[in-house]
Amino acid sequence: MYVVILAGGSGTRFWPLSRTKTPKQLMSVFGGKSMLQRTVERVLPLSPKRIMVVTNALQAEETARQLKDLGDLPVDVIAEPVGRNTAPAIALAAAVIACHDPDATMLVLPADHYIRDEAEFCRVARAACEAAADGALVTLGIEPTRPETGYGYIEADTAAPGAGACPVRRFVEKPDMQKALEFLAARNFYWNSGMFIWRVEAIRGELARQMPELAAAIDTIVFGEPWDLEALKPQVERIYPGIRGESIDYGVMERAERVLVIPASFGWSDVGSWSALPEVMEADGNGNVAIAAKGVVSIDSGDSLVYGNGKMTALVGVTGLIIVDTPDALLVCSQHRAQDVKKVVEQLQREGRTEYL
Amino acid sequence: MYVVILAGGSGTRFWPLSRTKTPKQLMSVFGGKSMLQRTVERVLPLSPKRIMVVTNALQAEETARQLKDLGDLPVDVIAEPVGRNTAPAIALAAAVIACHDPDATMLVLPADHYIRDEAEFCRVARAACEAAADGALVTLGIEPTRPETGYGYIEADTAAPGAGACPVRRFVEKPDMQKALEFLAARNFYWNSGMFIWRVEAIRGELARQMPELAAAIDTIVFGEPWDLEALKPQVERIYPGIRGESIDYGVMERAERVLVIPASFGWSDVGSWSALPEVMEADGNGNVAIAAKGVVSIDSGDSLVYGNGKMTALVGVTGLIIVDTPDALLVCSQHRAQDVKKVVEQLQREGRTEYL
Repeated sequence: MYVVILAGGSGTRFWPLSRTKTPKQLMSVFGGKSMLQRTVERVLPLSPKRIMVVTNALQAEETARQLKDLGDLPVDVIAEPVGRNTAPAIALAAAVIACHDPDATMLVLPADHYIRDEAEFCRVARAACEAAADGALVTLGIEPTRPETGYGYIEADTAAPGAGACPVRRFVEKPDMQKALEFLAARNFYWNSGMFIWRVEAIRGELARQMPELAAAIDTIVFGEPWDLEALKPQVERIYPGIRGESIDYGVMERAERVLVIPASFGWSDVGSWSALPEVMEADGNGNVAIAAKGVVSIDSGDSLVYGNGKMTALVGVTGLIIVDTPDALLVCSQHRAQDVKKVVEQLQREGRTEYL
Repeated sequence: MYVVILAGGSGTRFWPLSRTKTPKQLMSVFGGKSMLQRTVERVLPLSPKRIMVVTNALQAEETARQLKDLGDLPVDVIAEPVGRNTAPAIALAAAVIACHDPDATMLVLPADHYIRDEAEFCRVARAACEAAADGALVTLGIEPTRPETGYGYIEADTAAPGAGACPVRRFVEKPDMQKALEFLAARNFYWNSGMFIWRVEAIRGELARQMPELAAAIDTIVFGEPWDLEALKPQVERIYPGIRGESIDYGVMERAERVLVIPASFGWSDVGSWSALPEVMEADGNGNVAIAAKGVVSIDSGDSLVYGNGKMTALVGVTGLIIVDTPDALLVCSQHRAQDVKKVVEQLQREGRTEYL
């Protein structure tokens, strides 16, 4: 098994912790190791032959540094000169792996997701690997635990959670609350996690069929020299910017011939904004979640997230806040408005205050 | 005229900016100079013969440093080994001044009040000095601008704001809202500012009459050597701890024979808590007041106070907050709960977290 980690995101919703050069996946969102480092360590029990991290040029140096910190692992980094969404990144990684090992199976993981039960994750990944053996494209579908309107869904043919891989009927955009409640009750709808497993030849076949331009462009980049990623660099820099950006869901999965979903239930979050953290981290008796804080004094306060930058933090008469302190910028945000942190980033961009981006 | 500045307060309601060694009066609450420094500079147009700052031993070093920063001024510092409220501090200062100049008039000012119109302050102080010439104890009464329940009041004999000094009928404790509304309508009630002016012989006479124990103790401290405050130190350290703490209002003013109030209207606040700052500082278009911040980005937010510790601060979907950042501690507090910041200090004391006190 080969693992491809997609680590090119910008994570503006995690400002001020995430910045252009150190986006969410490179930050210690939970304290301790970065999300990328956690993602790499999570797959080690699967004994992958190689792990390929696709990032972008701005973040490549910090990405390489963090991977080196994990010790001597079989990890490679591909730096995209520009972001082109997931389909090109996956196509490029698949081509490199195929050069080396045409029979390989590849597991695709976003670098910035939270997974609570790592052993269960590995169990599901192994089952998904088996399900992909005969050429199916397998997607990990998270069994929903609430009527979430912030995720896309995957509708399976039958409602049989826990029963293993099942054919996919369709991919569904983020629903409204009414639909989300129906999906939850129906039991054959899963959250689209963006985690996939397939044989490289299977995904390359679908890419060639559904996205022939992309497949052709990738074939002009990758030829002959497996794993000499340094040698690929000039071609990547020349060809990649001309590629059209597209997601793997829209570009391939929604119209692929054999797609399976494997139900998964290992405590998952895409950690899409600061408000996701209280869902996946343990709160204190007041409902406060503190990260990187030297304690929280809470006077008639609660249900708040404090990212403390090594400080003691005191809350008096406040609830439902997100408080994020960094050396040069401080955020105080209502939990309900966590999505709008990106508006702060947009305003800073408009004002040209690049030192805070 | 001599000026006595009472600078011994602890200011726990301004945590985390105010700490044991650097309480409110020594902090740059408004940015720039400290409140003590502003208080000293405010009286310079009155050409005082000397300015005496009474502080406590813990803060004496920082007090002296800040006074030195103002340049070569006729300023002395008396350090109380323990705080004993305002009556002993005033008695001690009056004794020292009387040794030097028995005919002196002394102006008593808290070190930690805000005054917007400094020229008008000086005008009122000069008028008060004249009113005190024949031996009255004169208190500066602030013309109320709202039905404030957080201040004590002074009832004058007649409702004649702006008409100069007027006999005081009584001192009134902090009222409830109903009473505060009545006081505001009556127009002969003033906020008790804690600012006084009197001839030293007049206050010493009342102290001897009403607080004979205190007067006697002070007389064992001060004898003979005017302004050699260093020489006083051993007596102060020996006698002062045995003195009973008492406020000048309760100990002297409420039962003094000839008390006048001089109406004043120069934009005053005792800056009793963080929530007082938005009342006296200019807000931006969103109603936010920023101090020591590198700008505030306000997304659907407002009516908040940001003490930014040199940072850019972003607010998203929040209103009515007090946000105070310092190098080792961060406070987020509802404006309505500003009085309860002292509860944070109490909890830190209970937990022995002295590094934050």
